[in-house]
Amino acid sequence: MAGSIGGSTSIILRLEMEKQAVSFGKIATAINEAGGDVIAIDVSQSGKTTTVRDITVHMNDQSRTDALVEKIGALPGVKVINVSDQTFLMHLGGKIETTPKMPIKNRDDLSRVYTPGVARVCMAIHEDPSKAFSLTIKRNTVAVVSDGSAVLGLGNIGPEAAMPVMEGKAMLFKQMAGVDAFPICLDTQDTEEIIRTVKALAPTFGGINLEDISSPRCFEIEERLIEELDIPVFHDDQHGTAVVILAGLLNALKIVKKQLENIKVVVCGIGAAGIACTKILQAANVTNIVGVDREGAIVPGKDYANPAWAWYAEHTNPNRESGALSNVIIGADVFIGLSGPGVLKVPDVRSMARDPIVFAMANPTPEIAPEDAEPYVRVMATGRSDYPNQINNVLCFPGIFRGVLDCRASKITEEMKLAAAKAIASVVSDEELNESYIMPSVFNQNVVEKVKEAVIDAAYASGVARRHVRG
Amino acid sequence: MAGSIGGSTSIILRLEMEKQAVSFGKIATAINEAGGDVIAIDVSQSGKTTTVRDITVHMNDQSRTDALVEKIGALPGVKVINVSDQTFLMHLGGKIETTPKMPIKNRDDLSRVYTPGVARVCMAIHEDPSKAFSLTIKRNTVAVVSDGSAVLGLGNIGPEAAMPVMEGKAMLFKQMAGVDAFPICLDTQDTEEIIRTVKALAPTFGGINLEDISSPRCFEIEERLIEELDIPVFHDDQHGTAVVILAGLLNALKIVKKQLENIKVVVCGIGAAGIACTKILQAANVTNIVGVDREGAIVPGKDYANPAWAWYAEHTNPNRESGALSNVIIGADVFIGLSGPGVLKVPDVRSMARDPIVFAMANPTPEIAPEDAEPYVRVMATGRSDYPNQINNVLCFPGIFRGVLDCRASKITEEMKLAAAKAIASVVSDEELNESYIMPSVFNQNVVEKVKEAVIDAAYASGVARRHVRG
Repeated sequence: MAGSIGGSTSIILRLEMEKQAVSFGKIATAINEAGGDVIAIDVSQSGKTTTVRDITVHMNDQSRTDALVEKIGALPGVKVINVSDQTFLMHLGGKIETTPKMPIKNRDDLSRVYTPGVARVCMAIHEDPSKAFSLTIKRNTVAVVSDGSAVLGLGNIGPEAAMPVMEGKAMLFKQMAGVDAFPICLDTQDTEEIIRTVKALAPTFGGINLEDISSPRCFEIEERLIEELDIPVFHDDQHGTAVVILAGLLNALKIVKKQLENIKVVVCGIGAAGIACTKILQAANVTNIVGVDREGAIVPGKDYANPAWAWYAEHTNPNRESGALSNVIIGADVFIGLSGPGVLKVPDVRSMARDPIVFAMANPTPEIAPEDAEPYVRVMATGRSDYPNQINNVLCFPGIFRGVLDCRASKITEEMKLAAAKAIASVVSDEELNESYIMPSVFNQNVVEKVKEAVIDAAYASGVARRHVRG
Repeated sequence: MAGSIGGSTSIILRLEMEKQAVSFGKIATAINEAGGDVIAIDVSQSGKTTTVRDITVHMNDQSRTDALVEKIGALPGVKVINVSDQTFLMHLGGKIETTPKMPIKNRDDLSRVYTPGVARVCMAIHEDPSKAFSLTIKRNTVAVVSDGSAVLGLGNIGPEAAMPVMEGKAMLFKQMAGVDAFPICLDTQDTEEIIRTVKALAPTFGGINLEDISSPRCFEIEERLIEELDIPVFHDDQHGTAVVILAGLLNALKIVKKQLENIKVVVCGIGAAGIACTKILQAANVTNIVGVDREGAIVPGKDYANPAWAWYAEHTNPNRESGALSNVIIGADVFIGLSGPGVLKVPDVRSMARDPIVFAMANPTPEIAPEDAEPYVRVMATGRSDYPNQINNVLCFPGIFRGVLDCRASKITEEMKLAAAKAIASVVSDEELNESYIMPSVFNQNVVEKVKEAVIDAAYASGVARRHVRG
């Protein structure tokens, strides 16, 4: 399974055992022989002829789990009803809940939070709809919206299967930034239908985080919603990734002592994230960006059926470089991969300018293995947690939404994204900064605070903040 | 204000005071003179020429609040920025939050609840979508959906203004029955658009509670969603009210020793609740029901433009009684009012059969004042908390959704509603039962448990329960 982690784990086997045919001792022996230790036994049901037991087993080597389950299932009189490992157990019943902020202790409380007292609050909002920002959850609540069409690297797995990712995201929103986020997975992949649906449910929310919607639909959906709604809409796969990459690049450039204005950047993989990344780099004054996709470099003047590529051709590659990646990578200062495993070769890296910066984001297998690149790159980053310099969206979305909610921003402008990137970069001090520490940890408590403040300042500067600040 | 409650309250005045023009002593004196006691003073901002202070004031008589605010606002150098009372303070920032069920303590947790570990959970659901009921919040989560078109007695106040009611409902769902409920207030009042939107967001939820949607759109919206979704859809204003009224009637009939089969019931107000109430009474074997609306009794054979009334004429009033309420009420055993204030007169009650049962649900002013009816009725119930026998939907919706979620019901059948009504009635024991105690308190802990179990049994009997129960 993509990205599964080695090491030990606990599993729970739910077994139906025929009383006459098998003893528990036999099962315990089989578990031991297969590399497991029995930790606990719970009888879940006891009938006349069969017993159902939940057996918690510690596996020192989790890769032996499948073999163990197979062995137990092959015992006469034993039926394996279910196998849960820790990851599955953490998902049982979902990972988030909706809770009252205060208990309704008595009739008096009830008459205030519900009828009849609530009527006065309703009427106050009816008379001044902006009061929804102070008297309802709109003030602090974001919808995490997906249609399940491009979930992680798993593809179009549909709305139900996308829910665990969106719930995980909601957990991170709350834990990292105190933002209440609610997952909404849509039973439609039609662009207009998605736009209509999100617009219809917007009154409840103070912001919309679009997630895991496939390209090119994601562009129109986001653009239209930004235009037609008065709350911020942010497609995290595009802009979250772009912000965090720029943050890493700002710090990497400090190490190699180069300026944004002068560098040549090759962006490999011109999908949603690649385009967003290009746009934020341009907003940050990078002028020489060459995009590469399956057919090679995207060149001005050439015809592209894909409208996103047509836009790209018009706005990048000022020197009209063409050909394969191995051609355009020559002399580049920075490689940003948002494509697939192994597309960047060692000779490509060797042909880059001095002190190459390589961000290989393909997950779980990067564009080039860090081990292979190591002798030739100066700064390397990936999307993975098991190498230094992980580029992780968790560094961006909690703080950026904390900021926009706090100042009631109507939009997230390019300036606000730039400010967020600079804020993330700033968490690593000049003294700490080095080749293997350009990104703060996702658990660094300073990130959200810095991003939030930078985003609020930029929101006021952009004129999109709506919260009145008394002077 | 409709339904405001007398007695004492606390308010917080946010005042901007010009330092030169006014002293705090002057303000304190004015507050005392207007019937308030200063409890606390907090400086919220202090500038060169002005100070902003939050002054907490206890009002022995909350009806004097407006006069006090006016008096303070009239003082020279004082500007009243805001007045919050306890009810408003309880609404600040909304009344519910979305919280992780467990903290993400470290990298290992993160890799299980989010990437990369979450991918295995996603794929398990992708391979078997019914697993969404065990591995996501779908198992325990209900959407409380409104378009804000018929909120309480306030009318069409729109989605933002409806939010406080839906949030209150979500609090009750969780506190009473452990159900996670999330408010969705829609920015559309178009029937098709509402149906499309609710269908689109259904994958996240295990049930849909429709709320405060005006008639007649509520009928089609509910019917279509029941038909087109595989999770239960329940318009609480219709069926919640009907279930609780039937519960009360079952107990009232025990007191007067009459049978459902033999009674004559006059239903006054043939809107959404009146029709639902009629349907559940019919399912409970009441045959003689006469509906009355503004134009008098609804009579079989007459033409009605309103399709709901046309249905009503076909299915009720077997004796073709016609004329005004004062005519058809003669000889009735039960009056159920879901209409407006004061429509039932004392002579009407006096013309009813022996031991009249009067449920006067109009809120806040019932169809007849309990004080006026008292000498002539045997059992009286209202929608109000300050009289005995409150008919309150809170007795129904938490338990009914607890039940359907627990057995993964695909629908809420008429049998399940009947079972819920009987369960609510059963909480009042025969020994406890009397004219002023036919309904359990909304804080009675037994209600949810009894309703839940009855609903689950009925769901299995109806064939709509989908949770596998091992035999």
